[in-house]
Amino acid sequence: MGPHPAVAAIRLAVRRVLHDVLTDLTDIPRPRAAGTQPLVLVACSGGADSMALASALAFEAPKLGIRAGGITVDHGLQVGSDLRAAEVVTRMTALRLDPVESVAVRVGREGGPEAAARDARYAALDEAADRLGACAVLLGHTRDDQAETVLLGLARGSGIRSLSGMAEVSGGPGRTNRYRRPFLQVDRQTARKACMVQSLPVWDDPHNIDPAYTRSRLRHEGLPALEKALGKGVVEALARTAQLSRDDADALDSWAADAEAGVRDADGRLECAKLYALPPAVRRRVLRRAVVAAGSPAGSLFARHIEEVDRLITGWRGQGAINLPGRVEAQRQGGRLVIRQG
Amino acid sequence: MGPHPAVAAIRLAVRRVLHDVLTDLTDIPRPRAAGTQPLVLVACSGGADSMALASALAFEAPKLGIRAGGITVDHGLQVGSDLRAAEVVTRMTALRLDPVESVAVRVGREGGPEAAARDARYAALDEAADRLGACAVLLGHTRDDQAETVLLGLARGSGIRSLSGMAEVSGGPGRTNRYRRPFLQVDRQTARKACMVQSLPVWDDPHNIDPAYTRSRLRHEGLPALEKALGKGVVEALARTAQLSRDDADALDSWAADAEAGVRDADGRLECAKLYALPPAVRRRVLRRAVVAAGSPAGSLFARHIEEVDRLITGWRGQGAINLPGRVEAQRQGGRLVIRQG
Repeated sequence: MGPHPAVAAIRLAVRRVLHDVLTDLTDIPRPRAAGTQPLVLVACSGGADSMALASALAFEAPKLGIRAGGITVDHGLQVGSDLRAAEVVTRMTALRLDPVESVAVRVGREGGPEAAARDARYAALDEAADRLGACAVLLGHTRDDQAETVLLGLARGSGIRSLSGMAEVSGGPGRTNRYRRPFLQVDRQTARKACMVQSLPVWDDPHNIDPAYTRSRLRHEGLPALEKALGKGVVEALARTAQLSRDDADALDSWAADAEAGVRDADGRLECAKLYALPPAVRRRVLRRAVVAAGSPAGSLFARHIEEVDRLITGWRGQGAINLPGRVEAQRQGGRLVIRQG
Repeated sequence: MGPHPAVAAIRLAVRRVLHDVLTDLTDIPRPRAAGTQPLVLVACSGGADSMALASALAFEAPKLGIRAGGITVDHGLQVGSDLRAAEVVTRMTALRLDPVESVAVRVGREGGPEAAARDARYAALDEAADRLGACAVLLGHTRDDQAETVLLGLARGSGIRSLSGMAEVSGGPGRTNRYRRPFLQVDRQTARKACMVQSLPVWDDPHNIDPAYTRSRLRHEGLPALEKALGKGVVEALARTAQLSRDDADALDSWAADAEAGVRDADGRLECAKLYALPPAVRRRVLRRAVVAAGSPAGSLFARHIEEVDRLITGWRGQGAINLPGRVEAQRQGGRLVIRQG
């Protein structure tokens, strides 16, 4: 008798990713002591998603000659979080992960509580992965997390890049393929079921049900209402939208990068007539690149800023200079677009 | 004292569109009896959105030398719909629209009740516009309608084209710029307010609050829950997403059209190696074009079909022929992709 379907599903998802990790190791040899096995870490909060991931990694890694380890991050945001982190270490050790570590971080305030916690977490994971020489860090984000991320991006209204959710593979400093998300096609219910049938204790983060958090409101009110209106396939549709949007955004970014050289004059200035001839989607990306290159912080630059710059090209009626974030100015002068920091 | 802000807003929106209509008339001269003024029609259901639109058209058109007329479509789906259509004709006449007509249609069943009603409606509007020699037909869709359309597209999960909502300008047979939607940036509340302050009677379509209709559930449950979770800007963000997605989809479609010629061999067959070299977003669009060209109905062709065809290029392991809607088959033969109807 094989494993429970939920357990089979999470193991298959992890096995696929471990194969990809091994392929990458062959393609891009990295310094590693002769004879040692590559190390893959799981980032584990003790919740159902990451406990399921830890269990699947512990099961699959040895069969592929991979060492499996685990890191839990103590964000220090709740009383007793250190004790809980120690408990997660015990649970990971019980799964025979080795090495296993708890890493305490200090969460700042920049960008709001969720962003600050995320920044601190990834910094800690990067540090641990570097120190332990891990070739990959697995993250437990599920298809439901992905759907929520797409809706959060939708609420920004800043275009398809913000609809593209989380990547299956993403980078840390100097490690473009460090983070892997094996569960982006696995739903939360499957992860939870896999923990249950394997008798794995899981911890429910109170933040996940705290309506002070946007993501929590989305999970418990927004998405269920949307499913009620649109049908049960919404989560899957959102996850598919993420993948398609990511590919589309990548293609358009590469087009814009290619187009940029062609719209500059001999002195490197942007020629309005040539910009005008580009498709709007490409032109706006070229403009965005130019504004960021002039010193505007990408995170503060919204679609409406770029639209205003675009009107210097498409709706020219003698407008003055346009002020952009980071003290950057854009103005039209003699058929050229001049973008510079003041 | 100027008009109420809501009335000013709807008039401004209509004035802008009428200017565009006149510009198009100058750019593309169409046969018109000498000395006659161009005619613009409004499609009016008697609801708040289209009554507001009719009132703004009646006010703005004469100032620009345009004749303003109105059409109401009697879908015959409710008892007494003919009487209601006659009432809408009376109300449009009271606004001094001329000509004013009620057109009765028979709604079929194809594609579900909402799609069938829409098809019948546009056929009737096309016929009336042709017969009356109208150069444009204005439609009362608001920013809220647009937001709902984006969410309906999102639920399909079929990529950014389905996120691009309704176009500001779209076509009928042989008339690419026939339909105009002046209110896509105007919210429903403004249209309703404009009717109220102008003492215009409006009719509330019972379909709009019938939970049997997906759009109605979305309007009264889905979107409000999403706004509660994500904040009040959701409708605006969705509408902006529509515009950005439309431009992006247009650019990628044009790229795919250009790329298609380059990936065929001397005999016009698709070369797998050349397809492989394209960005995934462009390759999938080229494949979609080829499958549709082979006879697969575009409406039945989903993202998952194209993904399966794509795996013949990116994940070749000797798969057999892939069956696609419309008895179309795709298979890989000697480094070529062969797509044909069986």
